[in-house]
Amino acid sequence: MRYELYYWPQIQGRGEFVRLALEEAGADYVDVARQPGGEDRMMRLMQAAGPKTPPFAPPILKAGRLVIAQTANIMLYLGDHLALAPRSEAGRLWAHQLQLTIADLVVEIHDTHHPIGSGLYYEEQKPESARRADDFRVHRAPKFFDYFERVLAVSGGPYLTGRRATYADLSLFQVIDGLRYAFPKLSGRLGRKHPHVVDLHARVSARPRIAAYLKSERRIPFNEMGIFRAYEELDG
Amino acid sequence: MRYELYYWPQIQGRGEFVRLALEEAGADYVDVARQPGGEDRMMRLMQAAGPKTPPFAPPILKAGRLVIAQTANIMLYLGDHLALAPRSEAGRLWAHQLQLTIADLVVEIHDTHHPIGSGLYYEEQKPESARRADDFRVHRAPKFFDYFERVLAVSGGPYLTGRRATYADLSLFQVIDGLRYAFPKLSGRLGRKHPHVVDLHARVSARPRIAAYLKSERRIPFNEMGIFRAYEELDG
Repeated sequence: MRYELYYWPQIQGRGEFVRLALEEAGADYVDVARQPGGEDRMMRLMQAAGPKTPPFAPPILKAGRLVIAQTANIMLYLGDHLALAPRSEAGRLWAHQLQLTIADLVVEIHDTHHPIGSGLYYEEQKPESARRADDFRVHRAPKFFDYFERVLAVSGGPYLTGRRATYADLSLFQVIDGLRYAFPKLSGRLGRKHPHVVDLHARVSARPRIAAYLKSERRIPFNEMGIFRAYEELDG
Repeated sequence: MRYELYYWPQIQGRGEFVRLALEEAGADYVDVARQPGGEDRMMRLMQAAGPKTPPFAPPILKAGRLVIAQTANIMLYLGDHLALAPRSEAGRLWAHQLQLTIADLVVEIHDTHHPIGSGLYYEEQKPESARRADDFRVHRAPKFFDYFERVLAVSGGPYLTGRRATYADLSLFQVIDGLRYAFPKLSGRLGRKHPHVVDLHARVSARPRIAAYLKSERRIPFNEMGIFRAYEELDG
């Protein structure tokens, strides 16, 4: 099957979690909105999808007749179909639970530069961003890192659910990678206390298909329109 | 099977989505942290769960040997086991997609009174809350209501996925109910433009088991420690 991914073409954003899963599996897919006329196709899909399953927002995955939105939901689907998750019910739920916790962290990272409104510019909410980012650096990021470090210790490693990489590992890699771009000083401090998390990032980035993808033009560079933004003043 | 729900005993919070599903299904469950000594049991579970699937935060559902966290993940499990979701893959994914969109809305509602830090008091972030709540009332709440109104129109109703109620309907009921408590003026305005959403709230609240639950002592009243807080100044 040829999958179709619909996501904003200018940024990694939440689409990147889907891209990483498709790339790791060597899946046949088209990044539709990055093709000529593709952004128009995405806008039409958002108006007419399904027609009974309209998405609230991208990313959207078309898989045959299915039109699936919500990043974690897409991962749930791809986990089953691309062997990127355990097969047992307990294992599937555990991988999904981890993905949802990563999704919570992603919201908190986004909100360090958009604590007031996603429709406003960062420049319109800089004082609030400074306060939120301070809370993120001091309280929230360490809490999430402690959690994932604990999960990796309990799993026996090297991956979150044990010996095999799942979509949750790919997603945690992406968050660590993005934090290194957006919060280099914070990432350095956290890395020293969370060796299993650092090891997971290195292992995922060295997986052959991921390594090839990261070097390719398919990987959009980080930039200041996405979730992870290098605003030095927010890094403390 | 007797399910065990672990959640903060003082608030509805995210545990309420799980309670509504268990109640609608007439499931045998214990709200552990509301029993004598139960909060200690919850804290111990958070330290030792699984032991291979530690939760990041409550709510947590124990179902036999499974220890499941993340609200939407618990709903995914209960949807299958309590017949609160469609059985087909497409239907299961669609119900879950809706639940995840509701979860996004819940975060945005929470952040109207906690835009800076969940560990701070509201009183420590009142100016920021005023701005965030303004954006929520003007932009975000209408966008979500428009979306769910559209879903209900497309589904043929009366429920989000069609003729049968799913866990997503119970969750949307809870959000509408909470918004009426926290944002009565906004809810009045939105209700006039979103008749399907209003109808869904009425239908869910009239379902026999839900109606009995809402009148019971098992339903914790809304209060100013939870997600939905009646701060008049945030309602515009």
